[in-house]
Amino acid sequence: MNLTELRYAVADGVATVTLHRPDRLNAFTLTMADELARVAAAADADDAVRVVVVTGSGRAFCAGADLAGGPDTFGDRRTRVRPPGPLSEEIAGFPRDAGGVASLPFAALRKPVIAAVNGPAVGIGATMILPMDVRIAAESARFGYVFGRVGIVPEAASSWFLPRVVGISQAMEWVATGRVFDAAEALRGRLVSRVVPDDELLPTAYALAREIADNTSAVAVGAARQLLWSMLGAPSPWDAHRAESRALVELGEGPDPAEGVAAFLEKRRPRFAHRLGDVADDVAGVPRWPLPPGSVTAG
Amino acid sequence: MNLTELRYAVADGVATVTLHRPDRLNAFTLTMADELARVAAAADADDAVRVVVVTGSGRAFCAGADLAGGPDTFGDRRTRVRPPGPLSEEIAGFPRDAGGVASLPFAALRKPVIAAVNGPAVGIGATMILPMDVRIAAESARFGYVFGRVGIVPEAASSWFLPRVVGISQAMEWVATGRVFDAAEALRGRLVSRVVPDDELLPTAYALAREIADNTSAVAVGAARQLLWSMLGAPSPWDAHRAESRALVELGEGPDPAEGVAAFLEKRRPRFAHRLGDVADDVAGVPRWPLPPGSVTAG
Amino acid sequence: MNLTELRYAVADGVATVTLHRPDRLNAFTLTMADELARVAAAADADDAVRVVVVTGSGRAFCAGADLAGGPDTFGDRRTRVRPPGPLSEEIAGFPRDAGGVASLPFAALRKPVIAAVNGPAVGIGATMILPMDVRIAAESARFGYVFGRVGIVPEAASSWFLPRVVGISQAMEWVATGRVFDAAEALRGRLVSRVVPDDELLPTAYALAREIADNTSAVAVGAARQLLWSMLGAPSPWDAHRAESRALVELGEGPDPAEGVAAFLEKRRPRFAHRLGDVADDVAGVPRWPLPPGSVTAG
Repeated sequence: MNLTELRYAVADGVATVTLHRPDRLNAFTLTMADELARVAAAADADDAVRVVVVTGSGRAFCAGADLAGGPDTFGDRRTRVRPPGPLSEEIAGFPRDAGGVASLPFAALRKPVIAAVNGPAVGIGATMILPMDVRIAAESARFGYVFGRVGIVPEAASSWFLPRVVGISQAMEWVATGRVFDAAEALRGRLVSRVVPDDELLPTAYALAREIADNTSAVAVGAARQLLWSMLGAPSPWDAHRAESRALVELGEGPDPAEGVAAFLEKRRPRFAHRLGDVADDVAGVPRWPLPPGSVTAG
Repeated sequence: MNLTELRYAVADGVATVTLHRPDRLNAFTLTMADELARVAAAADADDAVRVVVVTGSGRAFCAGADLAGGPDTFGDRRTRVRPPGPLSEEIAGFPRDAGGVASLPFAALRKPVIAAVNGPAVGIGATMILPMDVRIAAESARFGYVFGRVGIVPEAASSWFLPRVVGISQAMEWVATGRVFDAAEALRGRLVSRVVPDDELLPTAYALAREIADNTSAVAVGAARQLLWSMLGAPSPWDAHRAESRALVELGEGPDPAEGVAAFLEKRRPRFAHRLGDVADDVAGVPRWPLPPGSVTAG
Repeated sequence: MNLTELRYAVADGVATVTLHRPDRLNAFTLTMADELARVAAAADADDAVRVVVVTGSGRAFCAGADLAGGPDTFGDRRTRVRPPGPLSEEIAGFPRDAGGVASLPFAALRKPVIAAVNGPAVGIGATMILPMDVRIAAESARFGYVFGRVGIVPEAASSWFLPRVVGISQAMEWVATGRVFDAAEALRGRLVSRVVPDDELLPTAYALAREIADNTSAVAVGAARQLLWSMLGAPSPWDAHRAESRALVELGEGPDPAEGVAAFLEKRRPRFAHRLGDVADDVAGVPRWPLPPGSVTAG
């Protein structure tokens, strides 16, 4: 991949995505949005990747939209020239929000995603992490849903994600005030699951990634990630019963359950052979989530 | 407005709604329901109001439905004479619950609402606060979802709100027992975000209101409030992506984003000029939430 | 009832369901699934039961699926011979997951359910407790959503329940790692509401059951349980307003509200006369939840 504002590396089952404009506190641009969408797709497609870790270069995670364009930054959305690809698409007649172009592919990943938040994560820096599964903060982390302070609304589909991640009351307090808050407040408000000293941030994230990669089936966890997130939008547990009943049959026809049970009975670590590359995009019959508008579900 | 059981005052961008039947611990009546619906609509329509604070007169927030009618209080709903207006409406062939008549207009407000709970908030006193964004409790606060103890179900649309605010397990424990509990239990259960000494209750609520009113755009926060609450009922983050993409375009055509970015770059407080009164009811293209049954959405 | 892997006893308004294969750590079988579905239906139908407590025999709650079948345990689902009844049904062309057959009847109960978790609750032991209202853990409790470690997905409709009970981030961390965790982690993650010494587990569960049974109306709490859980899947608080408005009318036509208010005014404990056996399956107009696929709702 040709990347200019991200770094992407895969090692030992873990892909690391690093927002990389350290001289600009990794401020978000259309280029970065496009590259985030591309690395998410690449991580999804690569069987060498079991888990994705997202972090920032230097002393920030992401300071928000790049304001180098000045006061016009959030104006003229209809006429601005966009790079080709999803950033040039419209949705219901309006140009797609670049934050959502960057964040939705992470929602669609069939692999767990861990955000390791170093320093400021403000605006899009605070919203792009919401469809990631686990958020770990360094003590230096700062968060802010500052949109109201610059006259815009939360983006990156965060009006859907934020109330589900932290609850509607905490979400509204942060969004209504636009306050910048520290890691301790993020922990109390359940935006992050842990706060660690800065030099333990990446080791903590990688230890969690290892716990996943070393012990679990890629296909089973891929199906589970799609199931749990998609069921947040389903009206009834019967929807889950239907999807799980099918997934259990389809997984049972692959090699992993027999290996998993054998390993358990033999008190050893399992060696799972099934790969996401071996199965259909709707792993174990679970349609890729979230389905774009107009899609037909497989169920 | 001609109000008899509420007091309503606007000062410095903040509307204060005070339940005002202090000799009856602000017990709820049909008159109070009607007046709550009216003040919510008034606060929504008045550009001088940025934030709404709701509290009670005297030593209670609201002790529940007024039981002066005795054992018949919760009977004869079909035949009881109701005041004209929403309290005389039916829904699906049944007279509308007065609690919902009072609470749903607060859900529909395009401005943040802070409940400052002094003393007992029981029955409708504990449910009317749920569509408000932030709940702060005085140490004297007591809460109770006591409906099962008087043979009725939770009302004011709380069967939708309560599980989303505190989680289904905590909601069911409080509803199944009908227990009255103190502010500390409310805090542990995430019903309130803070507990403060009684004499700090209103100052704390007003400080939070100021943080919102002094720093943010009325139009942006109005759109954000509608987005976040409405997305709680949406099946997919693509619904958010669609609504946010439109809202960002529409807000960008107004004056606030340019002022917000300029203020940020100049390290000064923004002076937002855009008013909700300048825009359509569906601020920035976000349909008023919650839409009454039978409505046609704008999207 | 003819039960071989459960014990079921009713005393003083409380039904106790005990998973009873203590020599196998109460490992789950098709027989146990069938018996769980039957006792849930029996507890629902018996007016002598106000509250259900579920626990395990001996030193475990439930150690998961019985692996006596060896590595083939989770394979061959299409061809395996199933007992007659719901375990022989298909859903969307696939044999129904036995976990869902066991858990969904507890979701449909019109009575509160308390899980008293003693020792390990792993796999189906950790998922069957999710549609129960309150979970209390003994200090010896251990939990694990270990499905990914054996190559399968979470079942028992837990992909719907788990994110609603503990939040999507905590759910994904536990599901992606498959980690076994202790009662303290379960408490921090809000999977359980309390952790108590082992010898206080059942007394604590029964004290909570008494608090419900002694103070509340069976019909009102039955309707409330159906309302709160079903509204988790409803798009709008207007859905709640409609259902509550009807339920309040229908309950008001029965005897309990008058008794409840009289008891409150007389400062005595109420003696509610209304029984679930006296009312339709859709208590107070609230359709039984969750409705199986293809059902027609009463609203």
